[in-house]
Amino acid sequence: MKLRVGILGATGAVGQKFVRLLEGHPWFELTALAASERSAGKSYGEAAHWIESTPLPASVAQMEVRLCEPGLDCDLVFSGLDSSVAGPVEKAFAAAGYPVISNAKNHRMDDDVPLLIPEVNPEHLALIERQNHASSGFIVTNPNCATVGLTMALKPLQDAFGIDAVQVTTMQALSGAGYPGVASLDAVANVIPFIGGEEDKLETEPLRLLAPLASNNGEPAVIPLEIPISAQCNRVPVLEGHMECVSVKLHGSPSMERVRQALADFVWPSEVAALPSAPVRCLDLLEDETAPQPRRDVHRGAGMTVSIGRLRSCPVFDVRFVVLSHNTIRGAAGGAILNAELLASRGLLLHRDRPS
Amino acid sequence: MKLRVGILGATGAVGQKFVRLLEGHPWFELTALAASERSAGKSYGEAAHWIESTPLPASVAQMEVRLCEPGLDCDLVFSGLDSSVAGPVEKAFAAAGYPVISNAKNHRMDDDVPLLIPEVNPEHLALIERQNHASSGFIVTNPNCATVGLTMALKPLQDAFGIDAVQVTTMQALSGAGYPGVASLDAVANVIPFIGGEEDKLETEPLRLLAPLASNNGEPAVIPLEIPISAQCNRVPVLEGHMECVSVKLHGSPSMERVRQALADFVWPSEVAALPSAPVRCLDLLEDETAPQPRRDVHRGAGMTVSIGRLRSCPVFDVRFVVLSHNTIRGAAGGAILNAELLASRGLLLHRDRPS
Amino acid sequence: MKLRVGILGATGAVGQKFVRLLEGHPWFELTALAASERSAGKSYGEAAHWIESTPLPASVAQMEVRLCEPGLDCDLVFSGLDSSVAGPVEKAFAAAGYPVISNAKNHRMDDDVPLLIPEVNPEHLALIERQNHASSGFIVTNPNCATVGLTMALKPLQDAFGIDAVQVTTMQALSGAGYPGVASLDAVANVIPFIGGEEDKLETEPLRLLAPLASNNGEPAVIPLEIPISAQCNRVPVLEGHMECVSVKLHGSPSMERVRQALADFVWPSEVAALPSAPVRCLDLLEDETAPQPRRDVHRGAGMTVSIGRLRSCPVFDVRFVVLSHNTIRGAAGGAILNAELLASRGLLLHRDRPS
Amino acid sequence: MKLRVGILGATGAVGQKFVRLLEGHPWFELTALAASERSAGKSYGEAAHWIESTPLPASVAQMEVRLCEPGLDCDLVFSGLDSSVAGPVEKAFAAAGYPVISNAKNHRMDDDVPLLIPEVNPEHLALIERQNHASSGFIVTNPNCATVGLTMALKPLQDAFGIDAVQVTTMQALSGAGYPGVASLDAVANVIPFIGGEEDKLETEPLRLLAPLASNNGEPAVIPLEIPISAQCNRVPVLEGHMECVSVKLHGSPSMERVRQALADFVWPSEVAALPSAPVRCLDLLEDETAPQPRRDVHRGAGMTVSIGRLRSCPVFDVRFVVLSHNTIRGAAGGAILNAELLASRGLLLHRDRPS
Repeated sequence: MKLRVGILGATGAVGQKFVRLLEGHPWFELTALAASERSAGKSYGEAAHWIESTPLPASVAQMEVRLCEPGLDCDLVFSGLDSSVAGPVEKAFAAAGYPVISNAKNHRMDDDVPLLIPEVNPEHLALIERQNHASSGFIVTNPNCATVGLTMALKPLQDAFGIDAVQVTTMQALSGAGYPGVASLDAVANVIPFIGGEEDKLETEPLRLLAPLASNNGEPAVIPLEIPISAQCNRVPVLEGHMECVSVKLHGSPSMERVRQALADFVWPSEVAALPSAPVRCLDLLEDETAPQPRRDVHRGAGMTVSIGRLRSCPVFDVRFVVLSHNTIRGAAGGAILNAELLASRGLLLHRDRPS
Repeated sequence: MKLRVGILGATGAVGQKFVRLLEGHPWFELTALAASERSAGKSYGEAAHWIESTPLPASVAQMEVRLCEPGLDCDLVFSGLDSSVAGPVEKAFAAAGYPVISNAKNHRMDDDVPLLIPEVNPEHLALIERQNHASSGFIVTNPNCATVGLTMALKPLQDAFGIDAVQVTTMQALSGAGYPGVASLDAVANVIPFIGGEEDKLETEPLRLLAPLASNNGEPAVIPLEIPISAQCNRVPVLEGHMECVSVKLHGSPSMERVRQALADFVWPSEVAALPSAPVRCLDLLEDETAPQPRRDVHRGAGMTVSIGRLRSCPVFDVRFVVLSHNTIRGAAGGAILNAELLASRGLLLHRDRPS
Repeated sequence: MKLRVGILGATGAVGQKFVRLLEGHPWFELTALAASERSAGKSYGEAAHWIESTPLPASVAQMEVRLCEPGLDCDLVFSGLDSSVAGPVEKAFAAAGYPVISNAKNHRMDDDVPLLIPEVNPEHLALIERQNHASSGFIVTNPNCATVGLTMALKPLQDAFGIDAVQVTTMQALSGAGYPGVASLDAVANVIPFIGGEEDKLETEPLRLLAPLASNNGEPAVIPLEIPISAQCNRVPVLEGHMECVSVKLHGSPSMERVRQALADFVWPSEVAALPSAPVRCLDLLEDETAPQPRRDVHRGAGMTVSIGRLRSCPVFDVRFVVLSHNTIRGAAGGAILNAELLASRGLLLHRDRPS
Repeated sequence: MKLRVGILGATGAVGQKFVRLLEGHPWFELTALAASERSAGKSYGEAAHWIESTPLPASVAQMEVRLCEPGLDCDLVFSGLDSSVAGPVEKAFAAAGYPVISNAKNHRMDDDVPLLIPEVNPEHLALIERQNHASSGFIVTNPNCATVGLTMALKPLQDAFGIDAVQVTTMQALSGAGYPGVASLDAVANVIPFIGGEEDKLETEPLRLLAPLASNNGEPAVIPLEIPISAQCNRVPVLEGHMECVSVKLHGSPSMERVRQALADFVWPSEVAALPSAPVRCLDLLEDETAPQPRRDVHRGAGMTVSIGRLRSCPVFDVRFVVLSHNTIRGAAGGAILNAELLASRGLLLHRDRPS
């Protein structure tokens, strides 16, 4: 029997991506859609300005949109809420016993909330124990859309050598700003060298994700690493796919051959590789010197594979390369669904009684 | 009486920009157009596939295109030749007594050829003395289109503090690839993380431009600096304007305030400020946190001003910022014309006898 | 002494274009800026999110934005107001004695308001007599941004032959939707086959513009022509310049040669040709089979020339062609300024006493 | 046992689309790839500059590219050849006994060659009888990429009412020009109002496709209809999907309601609906007034469904609407594969002996 899932913030861009990716999911069945007062009471087809490139499933179009309040008919909720409202709403759902799998930034840095990429730090799930919500409710988060690609590329390097410093410049897709997001007069044939709050996330979230699980007075804890990261973030006229030019200083100045091996041989946990949304390869190391490109490579692994290209030595640091990840799949809804799948496979998601 | 100028490679994208910028020039008059055998003998209007956004002047359209061989009716030539042919052609013109003001890369690193940005290293013109061409011919070059913005931004920092290391990631306009250049299927809604040969130029040309004029056995010489620069170059769907995200390590870790002052107070030689194509400000330090942007700022100073924005401290190095420069004006034809103006103002361009 | 002008709706996209085009105008001096309550009291630099591609003049940036109420310190006002508020505000200014030169649609079809393109129907200015506003106030309007190009192309054909029917399909620039206007996710690499209210304007405004001035009980009147026009309007990812594919059925099936002559020989009133913003040619008939194109031709005549290309016979009607006009210059602020210049040259704009 | 298929012109844009669409095809197995001398002898991965947005299958990458000469190891060939060479090559393959399913224009108007859209004119296949090629070879063609959408939308109207005249303006995707095709400097933020030869195809091919099968001295024949069609073709910065604004004059001025019914109730042959590449609906009549859009709707029916939107009455003719079809799937490789499937289902494709 499938787990029944709800979506908070269902009408927004991330909410729509959840709807699309959950269609035909082997483990999850969409049973509840919730959004703001403006949408509540309407059918989803009426409330949502559908922007996906495949038609809205008719069965979803007819579902009624509810308010974002506990009582939704589902076993867990995915949160695509805007950060202006996500904080207390997610807390309320967790308190009411719902597992909350959130894409919002609000609780990412909370001491007791896992900030999770299954291939990178599945052991951080232990933090859930520290959340004292009634009836098995809890919150799990996935990182910022630009963090995920960078972190997945850094993970094998941190494991193999240790990282001393990182410089990263991003070229991020328009869909990262949601809808309506960036005005077309600012986007067409232009670059905007600023994305509010983004650089700070890129400079801090990887340090939490890459940190080992520690113990603090007998309780699981994550103490962020202290690696200096400098991020410069740009918006470019691309629809999907965040590109990042990365330069990394490594311990012990390893040879390029060893670096290449570390990236090519990256092994992620078999429990993750077996999840329905896990791609065949979570990292693709591309040899073509013009790769990766958003138009050509963003769909690798159905948007869940992170592509790395142009791997070469750096005259200033040790190694540099380009990373591409799909910002609304791997970097948002798809990443959250993979998190939920990991939770499900560990037995952390339970069938709840249906509201009477 | 105006100096009569010719254009080598007149039908290409850079050649067309020379035509446009020379229209109504106070010191130069266009009297000769030269291109390959395919175009020679035709009228310019017939030979050139005009791609500028203002109409081709009728008087130029009627001029006959000649072969790229000495004998052209002009006092100096601008070279917009492709690097596949520029080397020997430019040598031949210099040998025949023509000053050659070149945008091609071929002779940029020659020991006796000035690689010149008037605001940065006008003293390098002394290298001309070492060129032993008959009848006052010589070659002067301007740097790569992405080098010029970076170098002009680094110049005040090198002067005030000294530079230890530079990381730069570029987002370069399509027009930098000439015409037809990048295929639209590769350009629209895409980023290409590779531009052949570009990173090498960005990592070497600034070291020559920023070097002081030295003396080698009594002769003027330029010994490139040895600062490590790491460049990562990308093509983005922008028409005009190269953006560069720069991070710089400086001697002595100066305060941000001192860095800001160094950039804001940059003084360039008054002989340069007086040239017809010199902008009112060669550097514009912008305060708006979303600046500079190609669409908004590339036309500053008629495309001759370099814009700097997002100046802030760097968690890894000392300072970081974004640079924007117009790649086909400041970074190509406009830069070359400014070079010619400096030569003219120093009396290094002479009226030649007209070919009989 | 220059006429002092104010701008209503000064912070919007059209208002900004007025600011830019009025800079250095020989007859008009910008003395007042007015906008909504949100902006009133602020400096213009603070209130306006400047989107033009040349920097905001510092002198304008310091001007204080006022409310859109009579009492502004100027001799006339340009209205770039949104149609949601333009109607009564423009009436109020006219009633208070200000000439109102409006780009808004609200009063375009009023019986006593001239809908004016100086080259097409300058005699319609006689309608002003019918406006009974105190102290010489009145309203004059310019047509919709897509109407102006179509109408200027149809005018010589109507004069020479008479028009029986018109089919027009437009491809309109993003700037026509104002700022922020179209969301970039809807614009990049896409076409939107709908622009609210636009088709109706294209099917009616030309009929008023092309109508002769008539007399109704001794008063000047305009009775719209009754030519069927079918308009299909699309938004395309272009920044500036509306393209229109037009097919026209003419009286008497004239030869293509006669049609070509009618367009090429179009003569517009010499009083209009002498105005400061009038282009050298109001119509450019282009022979290159790939012309006109927004990127290449939209700036002809500083954005005031309408380009016509691909003139050829039509298998269904008689003649077809492509029209390009600059939607925010000729089609908005520039058109309004030309209207004001015609009024000024006829002595219809007077210096008013300054508010005490 | 699957039919073994070859691709002529396999390295080009259309050839690549054939490769992609044939991957995992239930009836066809790719066994031969052929291209020009430049590619012959190389592996496909080496010879083709892969531009599809999904990775090139490794098994295909390793196949050797052969010359476009009979002797290929396959039962039939798909031709994605350029029209500059397709004519005689396709004839040679047919003469050698290969069924040739061609996307090239060369033989589309030949008296004895079916120009085929399975939903529109499957009876035209009878023309094959007139081709006197040895060993069951023959040629079947699909129409131009812009013709197919227009014709599929006109078919129900011609059947229900009869068509008197058509005006169509297209906005065509860049991929229609192949690779490298349109230069990015001509494409970004621009419209090109000319596509060589395209208007002629749109004005003639539908007349052949919509004509009934006739008999000429006992032989099957197709006599094109004589409906005036006026086509104006434009290239717009869209990657995939041709949009067309259509206005149609119908016999007897039927009501909009009857027109809507004719389009909504269009029934296509059940033998076609059963083919593997046939979409669930070959026509989608969309009600949203902003539909269809390339980004949102081009993938309907995996690119095989033609979308119609904005259906409304026309002030000049009777009815107007917007058509969207996928130009490289329905309009090229996908259309050709559907043609081959129809042939296969009728038993017209046979297993050939393998070359010894």
